[in-house]
Amino acid sequence: MSIVTGFETLDVRFETSALLDGSDAMNPDPDYSAAYLRVTTDAADGHEGHAFVFTIGRGNDVQVAAIEAIAHRVEGRDVEAILDDLGGFWREFVHDSQLRWLGPEKGVMHMAIGAVVNAFWDLKAKRAGLPLWQLLSRMSPEELVALVDFRYLTDALTPEQALDLLRAAEPGRAAREAELLADGYPGYTTTPGWLGYSDEKLRRLAREAVDDGFTQIKLKVGDRLDDDLRRLRVARDAVGPDIRIAIDANQRWDRDQAIEWIRALQPFDLAWVEEPTSPDDILAHAAIAQAVAPVPIATGEHGMSRVLFKQLLQAGAASIVQIDSTRVAGVNENIAILLLAAKFGVPVCPHAGGVGLCEAVQHFSMFDFVAVSGSQDGRMIEYTTHLHEHFVTPAEVTGGRYRAPLAPGIGMEMLASSLHEHEVAPALLID
Amino acid sequence: MSIVTGFETLDVRFETSALLDGSDAMNPDPDYSAAYLRVTTDAADGHEGHAFVFTIGRGNDVQVAAIEAIAHRVEGRDVEAILDDLGGFWREFVHDSQLRWLGPEKGVMHMAIGAVVNAFWDLKAKRAGLPLWQLLSRMSPEELVALVDFRYLTDALTPEQALDLLRAAEPGRAAREAELLADGYPGYTTTPGWLGYSDEKLRRLAREAVDDGFTQIKLKVGDRLDDDLRRLRVARDAVGPDIRIAIDANQRWDRDQAIEWIRALQPFDLAWVEEPTSPDDILAHAAIAQAVAPVPIATGEHGMSRVLFKQLLQAGAASIVQIDSTRVAGVNENIAILLLAAKFGVPVCPHAGGVGLCEAVQHFSMFDFVAVSGSQDGRMIEYTTHLHEHFVTPAEVTGGRYRAPLAPGIGMEMLASSLHEHEVAPALLID
Repeated sequence: MSIVTGFETLDVRFETSALLDGSDAMNPDPDYSAAYLRVTTDAADGHEGHAFVFTIGRGNDVQVAAIEAIAHRVEGRDVEAILDDLGGFWREFVHDSQLRWLGPEKGVMHMAIGAVVNAFWDLKAKRAGLPLWQLLSRMSPEELVALVDFRYLTDALTPEQALDLLRAAEPGRAAREAELLADGYPGYTTTPGWLGYSDEKLRRLAREAVDDGFTQIKLKVGDRLDDDLRRLRVARDAVGPDIRIAIDANQRWDRDQAIEWIRALQPFDLAWVEEPTSPDDILAHAAIAQAVAPVPIATGEHGMSRVLFKQLLQAGAASIVQIDSTRVAGVNENIAILLLAAKFGVPVCPHAGGVGLCEAVQHFSMFDFVAVSGSQDGRMIEYTTHLHEHFVTPAEVTGGRYRAPLAPGIGMEMLASSLHEHEVAPALLID
Repeated sequence: MSIVTGFETLDVRFETSALLDGSDAMNPDPDYSAAYLRVTTDAADGHEGHAFVFTIGRGNDVQVAAIEAIAHRVEGRDVEAILDDLGGFWREFVHDSQLRWLGPEKGVMHMAIGAVVNAFWDLKAKRAGLPLWQLLSRMSPEELVALVDFRYLTDALTPEQALDLLRAAEPGRAAREAELLADGYPGYTTTPGWLGYSDEKLRRLAREAVDDGFTQIKLKVGDRLDDDLRRLRVARDAVGPDIRIAIDANQRWDRDQAIEWIRALQPFDLAWVEEPTSPDDILAHAAIAQAVAPVPIATGEHGMSRVLFKQLLQAGAASIVQIDSTRVAGVNENIAILLLAAKFGVPVCPHAGGVGLCEAVQHFSMFDFVAVSGSQDGRMIEYTTHLHEHFVTPAEVTGGRYRAPLAPGIGMEMLASSLHEHEVAPALLID
């Protein structure tokens, strides 16, 4: 038996806004940041659990405070008891009768719970000597279903239906794992498409993306229609007709404006249109999807919970589901959303980029392929080139494909030197 | 000209869980709390802006940290510039390109912004020498519309439609203000109905409520069906056929379970059924409302933003809208939701109780009566007996009606002695 001996939080920030990397119609100046957590135990193996909530700068200190507020409920506890029932651990915090007032199940407190849950998943995977995707892919359908909270989901997915779905995927697990290890998982790149880039830089980066083996690129849009038309022309011209081009409006439009704008851009053969309006507006997404069909609507990067994703799927409001893995409450809620998407036959293409998201989300997509949807059709993981060098096991993308990570853990552990160099002291936050 | 010289936050908690006041199917042990803010200026008038976010205990420290994180962006600023453009002030924070990642527009960060906005509304009302409801009721339709952010609302309510609605209510303002000053505004009471109370206590308190002049009481339900049936019998027997009985499930059910349970309770002539399921589940609320019609469905106590309320109204998912005034972002977002509800002809019966909510929400309902919906039909303000003694100007309810508050301000200011006595030092939070 071992106990939790340490619970350390860090406010880690990168000054990405200085470079205009990452700029879009709603986020002109993100400073990619991590509200970071390190959990230690007294076990002889010396393993630590590392996880974080991704943010884009201001407020990262509040996110750290929320994680810190949970420390006293974790320190000193029996590690094995936690790791043996991560479903129960998740419920203990998400359904805490007082904490839930702060959401419920959304925003700062929900993300904080996710980071704590993920740190223990990291520990569990390291103890098992497996990368998270393999750890999950080797769990039985019953074990996986026990991780998921079905409250508020049963009108779309019952535990029995989830079991059936996972059992149906069981026979092919070994073959798909071998396929992943050999060939990886498709990625797409957002690197060429930031709003702050010149047409020349867009053209150059778009061509490089194709040369690098990517079959899809993504452009940020939504600021000015004439700019969008011009940039889509530049991009289509650069990549030719066979490369998919997705666009991302980052919530810039109201419902009717979205419909009008998308119709104007439709001739460029859009792979999808991402976040056309408020991420919480299920009805508007459904109306937009219907009005611009067959152009696929994608959303989920700001999707707060499994209850939102359930409704997006029920309403036919999203043809592509884009989970942000650190916005929902940890591994458990990522699994819940993967199961919902599989039930509705909708592909999940998780949000990545920022700092550390590529490293994290690849585990969910690979697990989905092996044990849930069993498919890579229409599925891709976002990729950007930023900040991978700060991670102990950086995501490896070659030929446009994510290579299956083999290092034990959840993939979110930063280098000690990076943590040291980019940790922000509270006094520095006052501008 | 004056500047903001102080921004003080306090973690204020009341040990209400010890008494079982406030217990319901999801919140067995709330400790009513306030993440409290006091803003001071160097103006000679000595006025201070007081506001808070209501929480139910654990996590109140995180809520305080979120408010505190905004301090450096307010301290030293020109007070008049803020008070003259509270619409712009609201947008500055709610649309902050980095902070919005933490929501957007939901949870801890959104509530924190609401408290800051409200502290300045308190200051503005005190400077005007008016209670908030009168200050708002004397603003022009143009001034009111300028306070509201219509982003993501225009598919349901445009600024022009809001103007029309406010202009249509203008002629009757003076008469309705006089009516309010003479007769007050109807309240209803939740005091008899907490789950933790014995049948005997329920019966006694229900009779007292009728004796006190209330025409509606509310019972907590959703834990066990046989208990609910028995308690509804006790309550109906105690109050007779002419008093309205509402029930509140506090999100206890999944969709289909809600429909079944409500049908079983329907014979008791329910005034409304509150929070049958997840507060975020618009589609489930709509399905429940349709299935149990004509039983009215009420929700909104956990409604995170105007975008959620818009959808509830569009989907016919709520027959009664129950804003929690400190959950959405301050006065401005309360006004936005009042306008939406008026557009759809749906009554607003705000959530109150807890600590200080009665004191706050009466201003919104009274403003709605004078200048927005112009009606009290089907509209009531929740009332509970808890904790009013801690406020500088406690809500006054006689004969089942809220008396119009006359003291300048937003009504959220606690007594210095209460703040002192109930402030929790960080070290005490570790249990």
